[in-house]
Amino acid sequence: MRQRNKPWAKEKLDQYPQYVISAPEQHKGKWQEVFEKNQPLHIEIGTGKGRFITGMAKANPNINYIGIELQDSIIVTALDKIIEEELSNVKLINVNAEDLREFFANFEVDRVYLNFSDPWPKTRHAKRRLTYKTFLNIYEDILVDHGEIHFKTDNQGLFEFSLMSFSEYGLLLKDVSLDLHNSQFEGNIMTEYEEKFSSKGNRIYRCEVQFK
Amino acid sequence: MRQRNKPWAKEKLDQYPQYVISAPEQHKGKWQEVFEKNQPLHIEIGTGKGRFITGMAKANPNINYIGIELQDSIIVTALDKIIEEELSNVKLINVNAEDLREFFANFEVDRVYLNFSDPWPKTRHAKRRLTYKTFLNIYEDILVDHGEIHFKTDNQGLFEFSLMSFSEYGLLLKDVSLDLHNSQFEGNIMTEYEEKFSSKGNRIYRCEVQFK
Repeated sequence: MRQRNKPWAKEKLDQYPQYVISAPEQHKGKWQEVFEKNQPLHIEIGTGKGRFITGMAKANPNINYIGIELQDSIIVTALDKIIEEELSNVKLINVNAEDLREFFANFEVDRVYLNFSDPWPKTRHAKRRLTYKTFLNIYEDILVDHGEIHFKTDNQGLFEFSLMSFSEYGLLLKDVSLDLHNSQFEGNIMTEYEEKFSSKGNRIYRCEVQFK
Repeated sequence: MRQRNKPWAKEKLDQYPQYVISAPEQHKGKWQEVFEKNQPLHIEIGTGKGRFITGMAKANPNINYIGIELQDSIIVTALDKIIEEELSNVKLINVNAEDLREFFANFEVDRVYLNFSDPWPKTRHAKRRLTYKTFLNIYEDILVDHGEIHFKTDNQGLFEFSLMSFSEYGLLLKDVSLDLHNSQFEGNIMTEYEEKFSSKGNRIYRCEVQFK
């Protein structure tokens, strides 16, 4: 996502330690302690401006959410939404998805969301796609048994690649929609990106897969 | 497929025993004997008017093909194409896909093609879809180890259902295209139906799956 640089972003993130967890490695294995209630933990990798994770947190007060976003100039917009809504069941961490094992213990996470991840269209960049097998291996480690990944994208090539990657890894395809906005799926929370692209007539692809 | 009734169709099929195999159960386990050459055997279930199977047979003389179609008023058009082209590596059988185990021995078939199968959109008819698990079980029996199903359709609902059915059955998704006619796929042979529907701008979905 292209974004204006915001030199003040880092400072603002530091001002809200109740929402932006500054040393996430210290909470590994005990994330429930940072939330008011002990309840299932869902994480979104690549939270962007936070519309999805804050929308989900509002709609599902019985779930704890963590939004993960590397770019501080973007995650600061997600922080604004949490501040405004005073949401207690969502936290942000400003880290790289490659390092998730440093921040989450095995079996600590109940669900992973991937929304409009960078498609990395060049074949030589396939390893960077968040549905590449090395990432699936990370998710498998931190997820509970039979944990799920819920994934949506408007990028046809990324979706095709991901369906094959999930299959090769042995994941069970529990649900799939090849045109989410014209489907029976209820309760879809749109990301900023999703609203923009679907309004141009682009299809949104979505699936749910489960580790066996 | 709606089709005019052709009361003379059955008689015509009987007139070409070299192309339309009248007692297929007698060839179970020894299909290679009905072909000129001993080479891999690919079958298409729901051959319709035969454009796909005859196009494939012409393009791939090193493969033997059998087109399977229940409706004699339709398969007779496929027969016309074989007569005209004098193809020696394609035969037709006028039987029901449910009974395939009566006609093929275990491991006798190298590949199954499903093209634009009836979507049976009502949930209560799901068992009739040719990608339902009971059919996958039949294909698994008659296919070689690691045998493949190549499937294409313009029906989004059937494709979604099929991806899930394949996954649940434990099939490996080797290739998938969510817009076949705008993909890198080479050598696509269109069916009559495919040409008609894609010319209206409908997407064609395609995948290749493999038994493990």
